[in-house]
Amino acid sequence: MNTLPLYRQLANHYLDAIRSGTLKTGERFPSIRLMMEKHAVSLSTAVQVCRELEGQGVLEARPRSGNYIRQPEPLPHPLPPAPQDVDAYVGIHQQVSSVLKASQRATIKVNFANPYCAAQLYPLKTLQDHMVKALRQNPQLLGTTAPTSGNLELRNILARRALTSKTHLNAEKIVITNGATEALNLALRAVTQPGDTVAVESPTFHGLLQILESLNLRVREVPATADYGINLFALEQLLRDPEPIRALIVMPNLQNPLGSIMPDSHKARLVQLCAEHATVLIEDDTYGDLVDTEQPLSTLKYWDHSDNLIYCASLNKTLAPGMRLGWISAGRWHDRVEMLKHSQSRGCEALSQLAVSAFMKTPSYERYLRRLRKILTQQRQQMRTAILRHFPQDTCVTEPRGGTLLWVELPPGFSSMRLFHEGLKVGIQILPGDIFSNGSGFGHYLRIACGAPFTPKIEEAVATLGQLLKNQA
Amino acid sequence: MNTLPLYRQLANHYLDAIRSGTLKTGERFPSIRLMMEKHAVSLSTAVQVCRELEGQGVLEARPRSGNYIRQPEPLPHPLPPAPQDVDAYVGIHQQVSSVLKASQRATIKVNFANPYCAAQLYPLKTLQDHMVKALRQNPQLLGTTAPTSGNLELRNILARRALTSKTHLNAEKIVITNGATEALNLALRAVTQPGDTVAVESPTFHGLLQILESLNLRVREVPATADYGINLFALEQLLRDPEPIRALIVMPNLQNPLGSIMPDSHKARLVQLCAEHATVLIEDDTYGDLVDTEQPLSTLKYWDHSDNLIYCASLNKTLAPGMRLGWISAGRWHDRVEMLKHSQSRGCEALSQLAVSAFMKTPSYERYLRRLRKILTQQRQQMRTAILRHFPQDTCVTEPRGGTLLWVELPPGFSSMRLFHEGLKVGIQILPGDIFSNGSGFGHYLRIACGAPFTPKIEEAVATLGQLLKNQA
Repeated sequence: MNTLPLYRQLANHYLDAIRSGTLKTGERFPSIRLMMEKHAVSLSTAVQVCRELEGQGVLEARPRSGNYIRQPEPLPHPLPPAPQDVDAYVGIHQQVSSVLKASQRATIKVNFANPYCAAQLYPLKTLQDHMVKALRQNPQLLGTTAPTSGNLELRNILARRALTSKTHLNAEKIVITNGATEALNLALRAVTQPGDTVAVESPTFHGLLQILESLNLRVREVPATADYGINLFALEQLLRDPEPIRALIVMPNLQNPLGSIMPDSHKARLVQLCAEHATVLIEDDTYGDLVDTEQPLSTLKYWDHSDNLIYCASLNKTLAPGMRLGWISAGRWHDRVEMLKHSQSRGCEALSQLAVSAFMKTPSYERYLRRLRKILTQQRQQMRTAILRHFPQDTCVTEPRGGTLLWVELPPGFSSMRLFHEGLKVGIQILPGDIFSNGSGFGHYLRIACGAPFTPKIEEAVATLGQLLKNQA
Repeated sequence: MNTLPLYRQLANHYLDAIRSGTLKTGERFPSIRLMMEKHAVSLSTAVQVCRELEGQGVLEARPRSGNYIRQPEPLPHPLPPAPQDVDAYVGIHQQVSSVLKASQRATIKVNFANPYCAAQLYPLKTLQDHMVKALRQNPQLLGTTAPTSGNLELRNILARRALTSKTHLNAEKIVITNGATEALNLALRAVTQPGDTVAVESPTFHGLLQILESLNLRVREVPATADYGINLFALEQLLRDPEPIRALIVMPNLQNPLGSIMPDSHKARLVQLCAEHATVLIEDDTYGDLVDTEQPLSTLKYWDHSDNLIYCASLNKTLAPGMRLGWISAGRWHDRVEMLKHSQSRGCEALSQLAVSAFMKTPSYERYLRRLRKILTQQRQQMRTAILRHFPQDTCVTEPRGGTLLWVELPPGFSSMRLFHEGLKVGIQILPGDIFSNGSGFGHYLRIACGAPFTPKIEEAVATLGQLLKNQA
C-alpha cells in the first residue's frame, strides 16, 4: 500500500469504512476541512479523496450541502423481452438493430457515428504496396487455405509489441480473428453457456450488447464513469450476489463510449476481484494503441497472474478498417477458442496479415502511430469546442486522453434518440445514448466521433445538431 | 404426376403401399417378372423401380432370394455426452477436434484429407492480377469498412449465375460470408434456439457436426446413400416424430462425403416434406459447380415455393481456397441473418470480392470451370482405380459425378481410425469415417480426396495405405 499516492490510501481507507458499514448510506461524508485536520493533508489531497470516492460511485455531491454516502446499485438489466414469434423477430437486439437499419436507409452526409479515422489518416498507400508485394512473393497464396490461428509471423509481431505495454502474450496462443467483434464472440462462446449471466460496463458500446443477446446471454450492467471507468465498488456488490457472473467484459484503456482509462490500482484490483469470484475477465483493448502517450499503459492482462483473463484486440481502428484484423489470446481456453474459430469461420484470409506484418516490422509503424495520435488529439479538441459552442448550455463533453470518441451529456429533458432521427433527415448521423445500455439511463447522452479532420462542413453539422436540440427545448 | 418418368410413378405407387402398410416390413417384394407382367413395363423399367426403392432405403436385395421390404429407421444420435468440467473441455465436438489436432501435429507428406483442388488448378495468376488492379482502382479501399452484406456487384453476379441452375436469388438478399462455414453458422443461428433439434444426412461432413455441437443443437441423423442422397422415407418417419425437427441441412448436389446427387423428384419431394412439417430446409450447395455436366442441376431452392429454405454456397472449392468467399440467401430470414453477420464478424473484406467479381464477369470463368471439371473427372478415375488396386478385396469406392471426394467402404472388420493414425505416422492423411457421424456406423469407411494431379507419389501413398490395411487383417 505504501506505493499508492496518499490520496488513494485515504480513499481506500474510507472505502473500507463504507463497505464495513461504519459509514452508512445517506450519511454525510466528513467535510474537506475535517479531513485536512484529521489526516493532516493538504486541501488538494482532501479534494482528490472526494473525487476518487465520487468516481467509485460511493459519494454523491449535493450542491451547498456537502458529500453524502451512496450505495451504488449495480443496474439490473434482464434480457430484453423475448419476441412472441421467433421467426418474425428480425434484429439481434431490436433497439440497436433498428438504429443501425435506420442509418442504412438514410443518406448520410456527415457521419459522427463512425468510430474510425478518416481514410486519409491511415497509411493506405504503404499497406497497398505491401499487399502487392506479398501477392508477388507468394504465388500460391490464393490457392491454399490459411491456418486457423492465423499467420505466425504476425502473431509474433503482436506478441512482441504487447511487451511494450508490459503484456506477455504467447504468440503460439494468439488466434487472428475477423476484427475484435469476432474475438469477443469467440471469448464469450468459449467460457459461457446460453443463459449464463455476463457483466458489462454501463454505458458500453452497442455492438457488445448485440453480441450478448445473439448468444442468448443475460446481461448485468455495472456503472462506469469517464474518469476511472468501471465502478469497482458496484462491481464487488454485484459479484457478491448469489447469481453467478460467468464473465465480465471491460475496456480498461479508452472505454467505448466513455473514453475512460482505469488507473493501475483499479486494474490490479479488478483482476483480483474477478479471480476471487471465478468470473472470467474478458479484456477488450481495441483502442489501447490510440492513448495519447509515449508510455503505453498497462493492460488488465499484465495484472492477471491466475490465467483468468481473455485478451481481445484489433488493428481496425489504428491501422486499416478495410482489413478485418483482430486477435484473441485466450490463455487456458486457447485450444477451445481455436476450435471454435475453426467451426465458426475457419482461418482468416492470409493476404492482409502478410501486408500488415511487413508494415509493423518497420519503425514506420510507431512513427505513424505517434503522428496519428497527435492529429486525433487536435481533432478531439476542435470537436469538443464546437459542441460546447453550439449545443445547449450545460452540455457536458468528455475529454478523453486518446481515440476518436466523445461522450456528450445533454441537460436533462433533451432526447438524443429524437436528435438521431432528426439528424438522419438532414444527413447527419450521431449515435443516441439509448443503444449503449439495455436500461433507459442514457436518453440524454450521445456519442460523437471525430475521426475526420475538422472542417467548416463539420462545424456546420455540429451547429445544425445544436439548432435541432434548441428546437427540442 | 404425369410428368414423372414411368419408373418413378411406379416407385411412388409402391412407396405408398409400403407407407400405408399394404406391403409390410420383412415381406418379399414383387419380382421383376411379376412387375413386368402386371404393369406392362419393360425389364429396364422394372429394374429401375427396384433401384429407386433401394435408394429410398425401403427395399433390401438378398442374394439369390429377391427383394424384401425394409423399414428404414432414422438413426437417433443424441448430443455427445457433455463433459463434466466445462472449462476443461477443449474441443468443439471432441472426436472431430481430436482428429483435427492429431493432423496438425503430424508432418503430412501426402494429404488425402484436403477437399480442395491442388493450387495449380486454380486461376491464381488471373485472380492476383485482378486483386492488384482492384487495389490500384480503389485507393481508399483498405481505409473504409466494407458493407455488412458484401459487395453488391458480386451479389448481382452470383444471383445471375444462379439462374443457370434455375435458382432465383435476389441479389439484395444475399449476404457474403467467410466461406460456407460461416453461412451455415448464420443459417442455424437465425432459425434455431440452443437445445433445438436439427436433422442432417448420415454420413455428413465433420465440420457440420462441429458447428451443431458448438451451437448447442441436438442432432438427428437421416441415412443417405451414394446414389440418391438422403433417404426420404426415413426422413418422413423422423418428421412424424413428436419431437419437432427445427431444421434440416442437406447437400443435394455432390453430398460430402457421399458424392450423391438427388434426382429432381427427390428434391421436389424433400422441399414439400419440410414445408409440411415446418422444418426449415438449409441447402448447402458448396460443390454444385463441380458437377461434371454442361447443364447445371437444379437446386433445392428452385423447388421451394413457400420461402422455407436458406441457401448457402461457397467459392472456396471452385475458385480459390485462399479467399474465404461464401454466401447465404436466407429469404424471409434475411434481415436477421444480416444482423447476425454484423454482430458475429461485420462485413467481409472487400478486396477478394472485387477481384472475384472482375473474374466472374468474364467468359473465362465458365471456360475455367469446364476445364477444371474435366481434370477432376480424370483424377477421380485414377484415384479410384488405384484404391481398388491396392486396398483389400471387396473394398467399395463411390463413383461421384463430380468433385474431389471419394467415399471408401472397407470390408467389415477394418478400422479406418486405426488407418488414420498409422497413416499420420508415415505422413499420409486420410479422414476416418467415424468423424462423419455422431454414431458408430462408419468405422470401416474413409474419405479420400483427389484434388491433386495423380502422380507416382500418390499411387505409392495409396499402396502404402493398402499395405497398412492388409497388416490389420
